[in-house]
This record gives sequence, C-alpha cells and structure tokens, in this order.
Amino acid sequence: MPLNLSLNLATVRMQWKLPQAVEAAARHGFAGVAPWREMVQETGIAQTARICLDSGLRVTGYCRGGLFGADGRENLKAAIDDNKRMIDEAAAIAAECIVVIGGGLPPGSRDLPAARAMFVEGLAAVLPHARDCGVMLALEPMHPMYAADRGCITTLREMLDIADTLGNDGLGIAVDTYHVWWDPELRVQIDRAGKRIVAHHICDWLVPTKHMLTDRGMMGDGVIDFPAIRRMVEAAGYSGIQEVEIFSDYWWGRPGDEVLATAVERFKTVCT
Amino acid sequence: MPLNLSLNLATVRMQWKLPQAVEAAARHGFAGVAPWREMVQETGIAQTARICLDSGLRVTGYCRGGLFGADGRENLKAAIDDNKRMIDEAAAIAAECIVVIGGGLPPGSRDLPAARAMFVEGLAAVLPHARDCGVMLALEPMHPMYAADRGCITTLREMLDIADTLGNDGLGIAVDTYHVWWDPELRVQIDRAGKRIVAHHICDWLVPTKHMLTDRGMMGDGVIDFPAIRRMVEAAGYSGIQEVEIFSDYWWGRPGDEVLATAVERFKTVCT
Repeated sequence: MPLNLSLNLATVRMQWKLPQAVEAAARHGFAGVAPWREMVQETGIAQTARICLDSGLRVTGYCRGGLFGADGRENLKAAIDDNKRMIDEAAAIAAECIVVIGGGLPPGSRDLPAARAMFVEGLAAVLPHARDCGVMLALEPMHPMYAADRGCITTLREMLDIADTLGNDGLGIAVDTYHVWWDPELRVQIDRAGKRIVAHHICDWLVPTKHMLTDRGMMGDGVIDFPAIRRMVEAAGYSGIQEVEIFSDYWWGRPGDEVLATAVERFKTVCT
Repeated sequence: MPLNLSLNLATVRMQWKLPQAVEAAARHGFAGVAPWREMVQETGIAQTARICLDSGLRVTGYCRGGLFGADGRENLKAAIDDNKRMIDEAAAIAAECIVVIGGGLPPGSRDLPAARAMFVEGLAAVLPHARDCGVMLALEPMHPMYAADRGCITTLREMLDIADTLGNDGLGIAVDTYHVWWDPELRVQIDRAGKRIVAHHICDWLVPTKHMLTDRGMMGDGVIDFPAIRRMVEAAGYSGIQEVEIFSDYWWGRPGDEVLATAVERFKTVCT
C-alpha cells in the first residue's frame, strides 16, 4: 500500500531530472509527484505525460502559476496568456491542480495593493479556461517574507476572500505548512477553507533560517507542529494526500535516495 | 525646529555607546532617542537619565520588554520579574513607553499557541506595575519570520485582540513598518488601533533580504510605501514622532554621522 504522500520534484531538482525523479519516487513508495514547469519543459510535455502514466503515480500538482502582476500591468496580458498555456500543459500531464501564487511587486513598484489587484484580475481572466480544461487552480498563500518578490498574497484569509470574490468554482486552496504555520488565524481560516482545501504541502521551519528561499527544513528538523496542522486540515474535511516540498541547499547536496528515504521516514514518524 | 523623528539607538550600536549616540542624535536634529537596555545598563541608569535630560531629547521608547514565554513556563515568573525591573528603569529614564514583543518559542517547543498564551499571562501580570509607574507598554507585533525565535505575536490584529482582552488601559500599539508592511489587513487594523497607536517605527524592507535580522533597509532603499503607511497612521489619529530603527550590517559598518545624516535626509524626502 503506497504512502499517502507525494513528492514535489523541486525537493530533488539538483540531483535528478524528471524521469529519474519520478522513477525514484515510485521506488520509495510515494503515491504521487508534483513537477515544476522547467522540468516538464526540459523533458517534454508528451514524454512527461507518458512517464507519469507509466509510473502509476498521481500528478498531485503542477508548479507554478499565478504571478500575474509580477512584471507590471504592461505585461499582465502576457502573464494571463502564459497561465492559459500552463493550464493546457497541466491538462496534458493530468495534473490534479496548478499551484497558483501571488507573485511579487513589479520592478520598481512599492504598490502592494496594486500587485494584489492585478493578481485577482489575472486569476479572473484565466479561470474560465481552467474550468473548461477541468484543471483546478490551487491558491497558495505564501509566507509574508515573500510578499515583495514572490507572493503578494500572504494569508489564508486573503486567499479565501479572493476565492469568495471569484465564486470559488474551479478554485481550491493549497495549505503549505511552511507558509502558514505562524498564522494566528490558522485554525479559523483552515476551518473556513473546508472542502476547498485541495493540497496539503509539508516542509519545516528551521531555527535559525539562514536563507529565505533555500534553507527550508525536513519535517522534524524545525519547529512546525505537523500533527496539529494535520488535525486542523482533516477537521476541515481534507484527508487526502500530503506533498513534501523542500527547498534546501543542504538536502540538494545529499544523494537523492537519502532525501527520499528521509522524507518517507519523517512523514511516518513526525507527520502522522 | 527639530525633526519629528527619534533615533532608535540600535541603529548605531556598533559605532557608539549611549552618551555619544545621544549627543550625535541631538547634533543631527533628532527630537528623541530610544535606547536599548544593554546600552542603558552599560552607561548606568542614573547617568543615562542625566544624559537624556541634559540633551533636551525625548526618550521615545525603551527596548525591549515582553518575551514572557521565551524561556518556558518554568521561567515565566523570572521573565515577569525582569519586566517589572525594566518598567522601573523606564520610569527612571523617563521613557515614554517600553516596546513589548512576543518572544519566541521556548527551547525545544513547537507549541506556538502555548507561547502566545504565556505572553498574555505575563503581560497581564506586569500591567498593574506599569500602570502604577505610569509607563506605557507599547505592544509591537513582529514580522512572521520571527514567530519562532523572537516574536510569536505577528499581526496587529492579534496584538489588538490581546489589548482588548486586557482592557487596553496602560497598553498602546507600536506600528513598525518593517514588521507590518506586508499585512493585507494593514489599513483595517491601523484604523482599529486608532488612538492606541503610541509609536511609529520606520525601517525599509530590502529585496533581496540577505539576512533575516541584520539586513534591514534605510528608508527609500526598499519596497515599503512610507507615505501610504504614514497616512494610515495619521488617519487613525497618530501624528506624533516617528522613530528610525535599522538593524543592518551595512549601516553598522558606516560612520555614525553618515548613518544619521542619511536617515534625516531620507525621512524628509521619502517618509513625509
């Protein structure tokens, strides 16, 4: 019986290309994978679809869409078009959702409300195409330390407000422990999200964190209370697959099989 | 006419001890200073009081109290006692408030709700003494990236909820741009804070931020929209002094007079 765990391929992106990473995930007992676009494009869409299908693994997510305002209003249409192409790609590889993040401020901008407004505008523009293709958009709030350069939407509350504004149809919520563990409203907003939760990503917060992007932690090595968050998510109605996603210079420097074996062991001992 | 600007002495803590820093602040036209406890203890309480009085500058804050649960429940009473001593010291140097932060998780703990509860418990325990001494406790939410190791209270919403719970008397709110700029509820919660705002700290968010603690930015070098936040704070009823507080390896490596001259110039051109 496979683990109820998926491997976000960024976790081993320095060790393996997509075909090797998918093979390793299957060998270590993962039930799914979540590829990033760069890896999929390198391997090719058709080839990726075949590899994933042959592996018997689910494709639990495709990373990552959104970022509508990150290059400014003059490039909003290009960002929308690119997200539509990404939706087509997600459908082609049978991804269960696209992970959608806010995107940062446009170069030179200090206008966070404007960036947020462009995110909502872009999301509204691609949503009909996502619905037509049957591709769920999983809205992922990012940790506030990324507000300037990656994810201007930082809280579950704000993402849920946006989903409500757009009518929710075709939209889900991705709860990533790394991004939301600090939130004093965590329980309330996870409960509010309810059946809209379509992804549950796991990654630990290290103390100290030496780099804002590439010093994330293996479950158990940091301070996040995984069982507590899991109970909240389950109480909200999501008992689906979890997905491990760790950006880490340390783990990128270890053999891929060691990373996967450790993730599986920690998932069993720390997260369940 | 002096600037409506105070100097948090941490900004030049590598260049000067307290007497030199206060002298320099007066010379550069600041209207106040905010010392840290280590600097005050090094100089001595009575001597600090005399230096500040003679300088003609206001003492806009004393840094920093709170952190009640950071060493665990077994040390909560010691933290409470230490905060009471700090209140006495603040009264002795005529500080207008003590900046109070949440404190991180106790060593080995993953229980953020427990840390938050200890913060509230400790705050409630010292509040009568603060009221007796006429020392305002300025509650400062910290950026969520400090939730584990410095400030478990991360949002204005949560600090205001705590202040409401404790009856508000003797409690104020410190709005530090660096800690709150990302908050989607910024306008709503500043408006809610209203007359409870007793401190307005300024510091910029750099992109990229190379170190979580010591790579904060001079106003104008980052992405924070200072005029927008100033307008929110003023609309809420606070038009008092602002206080520049920058933890920065870069600025700690520059001559103190250059740092102060730059802060004054940026305050005039970027923040007003």
